[in-house]
Amino acid sequence: LEEQDPRPSPLRVEDLALGQVFEVGSRAITREEIISFAAQYDPQPFHVDEAAGEASLFKGLVASGLQTFAITVRLLMESPLYLTGGLIITRGEIQWRRPVRPGNVLHLRIEVIDVAIDSEKDRAIVGLNIQTLNQNEEVVLIFAPRLLTERRTIKRD
Amino acid sequence: LEEQDPRPSPLRVEDLALGQVFEVGSRAITREEIISFAAQYDPQPFHVDEAAGEASLFKGLVASGLQTFAITVRLLMESPLYLTGGLIITRGEIQWRRPVRPGNVLHLRIEVIDVAIDSEKDRAIVGLNIQTLNQNEEVVLIFAPRLLTERRTIKRD
Repeated sequence: LEEQDPRPSPLRVEDLALGQVFEVGSRAITREEIISFAAQYDPQPFHVDEAAGEASLFKGLVASGLQTFAITVRLLMESPLYLTGGLIITRGEIQWRRPVRPGNVLHLRIEVIDVAIDSEKDRAIVGLNIQTLNQNEEVVLIFAPRLLTERRTIKRD
Repeated sequence: LEEQDPRPSPLRVEDLALGQVFEVGSRAITREEIISFAAQYDPQPFHVDEAAGEASLFKGLVASGLQTFAITVRLLMESPLYLTGGLIITRGEIQWRRPVRPGNVLHLRIEVIDVAIDSEKDRAIVGLNIQTLNQNEEVVLIFAPRLLTERRTIKRD
């Protein structure tokens, strides 16, 4: 990992240590993106209509939680934590903590909480605790996945 | 709920009982949908390239787990379980159990595992256990969300 490099190479699973924390990503979300994503995957009124949002618990238009989660996964895949052996998410606990609104800018704080290498199968299980934060450092989502990775390096696009 | 009606009206939270099971949805997924979704949200090689899929643990092209989850949420929102007061998912545990491949047809088996009505705030918390199954009745995903709903009826599109 070179700090100068804006797109650091992915890490090998052997490079991870418990308690390591990575701050990654920066992703703004627009009103248009919120509405178009929700229209396709989660067309609840408060995700697609400003007036319905105002009348809801949220007091305004808010992004689908599914979209916040998709952005979280995308930022993870673009980060150094996208290990050389790939990342297959096998399970995870998600908490949606705060609404995401138009103009919010999201980033991730990722802590390594488990690493278990199976030398026989040349696979490893990695546990992460991922906080997705907005531009005010407020946690909007917490995702604690268990991930399967191979120890060989997979081919990238 | 009238069995004749292909799009039954949403239920009120008061209509739910612990242990109730709903079988809902039918959604085929194509190779093109798998590749285009993954290109946008989860561009790992085994989600976007047939040869890379063959060379992977999956032995073939497979859908992003995020897409299987998105389809699960969409089928939930289209079901009678999309309660009259809306559904806000506050947290949930997800397990990805089996790969989803081109041509698979997905449906949901939803069990009501918790209903707690807060009369003072006119809100309720609902716990569901959702199994997403393929055309061979194999479980591909399990999602156990906690949902917040209002007791008033919200306006639909």
